[in-house]
Amino acid sequence: MVRPAFLKGIKLERHELADLLAADLAGVESVMERSLRSEVPYIQELNEGVLDSQGKRLRPALLILAAGRPGESGDDVLLCAAVVEMIHAASLLHDDVVDRGLRRRGRPTLNAEHGDGPAILMGDYVYTRALTLLVDAGLMEVFGLLARAVHRLSVGELLQLELKQRRILDEDAYRRVIYEKTARLIEATCRAGGILGGRPAGEVETLAAFGRELGMAFQIVDDMLDYDADALRLGKPVGRDLAEGKRTLPLLKAWAAAPPDRRDRLAELLGDGGENRLAIIELVRDLGGLEAAHAEAVRYGERSRRALADLPASPVRAALDASVDFVVARRF
Amino acid sequence: MVRPAFLKGIKLERHELADLLAADLAGVESVMERSLRSEVPYIQELNEGVLDSQGKRLRPALLILAAGRPGESGDDVLLCAAVVEMIHAASLLHDDVVDRGLRRRGRPTLNAEHGDGPAILMGDYVYTRALTLLVDAGLMEVFGLLARAVHRLSVGELLQLELKQRRILDEDAYRRVIYEKTARLIEATCRAGGILGGRPAGEVETLAAFGRELGMAFQIVDDMLDYDADALRLGKPVGRDLAEGKRTLPLLKAWAAAPPDRRDRLAELLGDGGENRLAIIELVRDLGGLEAAHAEAVRYGERSRRALADLPASPVRAALDASVDFVVARRF
Repeated sequence: MVRPAFLKGIKLERHELADLLAADLAGVESVMERSLRSEVPYIQELNEGVLDSQGKRLRPALLILAAGRPGESGDDVLLCAAVVEMIHAASLLHDDVVDRGLRRRGRPTLNAEHGDGPAILMGDYVYTRALTLLVDAGLMEVFGLLARAVHRLSVGELLQLELKQRRILDEDAYRRVIYEKTARLIEATCRAGGILGGRPAGEVETLAAFGRELGMAFQIVDDMLDYDADALRLGKPVGRDLAEGKRTLPLLKAWAAAPPDRRDRLAELLGDGGENRLAIIELVRDLGGLEAAHAEAVRYGERSRRALADLPASPVRAALDASVDFVVARRF
Repeated sequence: MVRPAFLKGIKLERHELADLLAADLAGVESVMERSLRSEVPYIQELNEGVLDSQGKRLRPALLILAAGRPGESGDDVLLCAAVVEMIHAASLLHDDVVDRGLRRRGRPTLNAEHGDGPAILMGDYVYTRALTLLVDAGLMEVFGLLARAVHRLSVGELLQLELKQRRILDEDAYRRVIYEKTARLIEATCRAGGILGGRPAGEVETLAAFGRELGMAFQIVDDMLDYDADALRLGKPVGRDLAEGKRTLPLLKAWAAAPPDRRDRLAELLGDGGENRLAIIELVRDLGGLEAAHAEAVRYGERSRRALADLPASPVRAALDASVDFVVARRF
C-alpha cells in the first residue's frame, strides 16, 4: 500500500507505521518460512521455534523502509529483509546457549526446550541458510556487507565474554561491544536497504549512519530493560544480565556517579556473584544509572534522527523518524 | 617444489606426498594465522587452540592437489585451502560442544578448556571469517559452493541428532548423514581446487566425484576408529560415539548380520544407554561389523580412485591416488 501524499513530513503514529509495513512483513515471513523449510522432519520441528518467535522484526522493517518503497518492495528487498532477520534469529539461538537463557519473549528458548546441541546446530543452519539465500540470488554486494557484519557480531560477543570474565567496568569497552554485536548489523541492514533500493551513494551512507546510531540506542534501551521492574511485559526476568555477569550501561553510569562509600557497597554487591541482584538494581537506580543510560540512548536516537535530515522528505523518512521514537521508548 | 617428470604415473610414498605439499601447507598455516588474528586479546588467546590443533590438514592438501600445481600454488589456492580448513575447524568447535567432547587429538578441546560459550562463539568467528575471506578476495563462485557445503554440513549434523534421538538403525540414513556432514565439504573442496586451478569443466566434475567418494571413505574409517583398541594414537577414547548414542557403520553392519539371539543381546546392550560400551564393541567385532564397514570404505576408496582415471596422468594424479590409500588406511 502506498502512503498518501498528505502524509509527507508528518509524524507517523505507531499503527500507521505498522500498516505501512504489514504487507511487506507478511512477505518476509513467507520467505523465511520457505527458506528454512527442510526435508528433514526434525529440522522442520525445530524451525517452528525459530519462526514463531514473536520477534519485533525491527531489522526487516528498517531494511524495507531504507529501500524506500514499503508496500511495493521488490523480491530482492523482501529476500534481504528475511536474511537480516534470519541472521538475527541465528545469533539469538547461539546467545541463549552461551548465556544459558531459558526464556525469551515469554516462551522457552530452543535450548531450554530441545537442548544445547540442537540450538547450536540450528543457529548454524539458519546463519548459513541466510547467507546462501543472498548468494543464490546473486546479491553479492549486499552479501559481502552482511557477511562482514555477522563476523563482527561474533567479535562483539567474544569481546563481551572477555569483559564479563575479567569483570571490566569500562564505558568505552561497553560501547564497542554494543556496536559490534548490535549496531553493526542494523547499520548494514539500513545500508543494504539503501543499496537494493537503488538510492544514490550519499543517501546510502546517510541510511547507514542512521542505522548505526539507532542500533546503539536500541541496545542501550534493551540493556536498560534488565533493570526494569516490569519483567512480565518482556517475558524475561529482571537482572538476568547481572546474574550472568554482564555489566551494562546503567551499572557503568551508576559506578561512575557513585561517591566512594556507595561505590564500595556496589563493588561488594557485585563481588557476591549476583546473589543480591535486587539490591544492585535498587542501588543502580538510586545512583541515577538508569536516567544516565536513558539520556545516552536519547542522544544516540537524536543523532540517528539528525542523520535523516539529509534525506528528501517523504513518508518513508517520516516512518524512519517514527521508528526512532519506538526504539527509544521501546514500544515498537 | 615441482615433482620431477620421472614420477609420472608412479605411486607416491607417504613422505613424498608430504614433501610435495610441505611448502604450500606452510603457506596455508600462515594465511590461517593471519586471518584469524584479532585486536581482541581474548580472541587471540582462543585462536591458539584453533590453530595449534594438530589437524591432518587433509582438506587443504586435497584442494592444493586438485588445483594442480603443488609447490607453485597461487595466492587464491592457498587462501581457499585455508578457508576449507577453517570451515572444518569451526565445525569441530561446535561438534565438540554438541557432543560434549573433552579431548581431540590428544589434547583438551576448546570447550573443555574455556567453556561452551567461548567454543560456540569461536566457531561462529572462524566460520564467518572463512566466508568473508572468500568475499574479500572476490572468489564468488568458490564462495557459493563452499557456503552451500557449510549449510548442508549443519543439515547433516541435525540429521545425525535426529537419528540419535530416535535411535534409528538405518544404513541409508547413515550414508546420508556422512555425505552431508563430511563428504559434501570434501567434494566442494576438490571442486573448488579444480575451479581455481583453471581446469576444464570435465576435470572439475571428476575431481568433485573423487572428493565425494573419498569423503565417504574417510568418514567410515573415522567411525571405525571408535571401535579400535588403539585409542591412544587418536587421543580420543574408544566407544565415544556409542556413549553419545551415535550408531555408525560397524554397528549397523553387525546389526544386519546378527542372528536373532545375538541381535536381541545387542539391542539389550544398546538399551542400557552405553553403560556396556566395551561389551558392545566386542560383540560388533565378533559379528564382523568392523570388517564389513572396512569393506565399504575400501569400495568408496576404489570408486574415488576410479574417478581419477579420467584425469591425465601426472604427479598430481599420483598424489591424489596415494591420498586414497592414506585415507583408507588412515595413516595420512
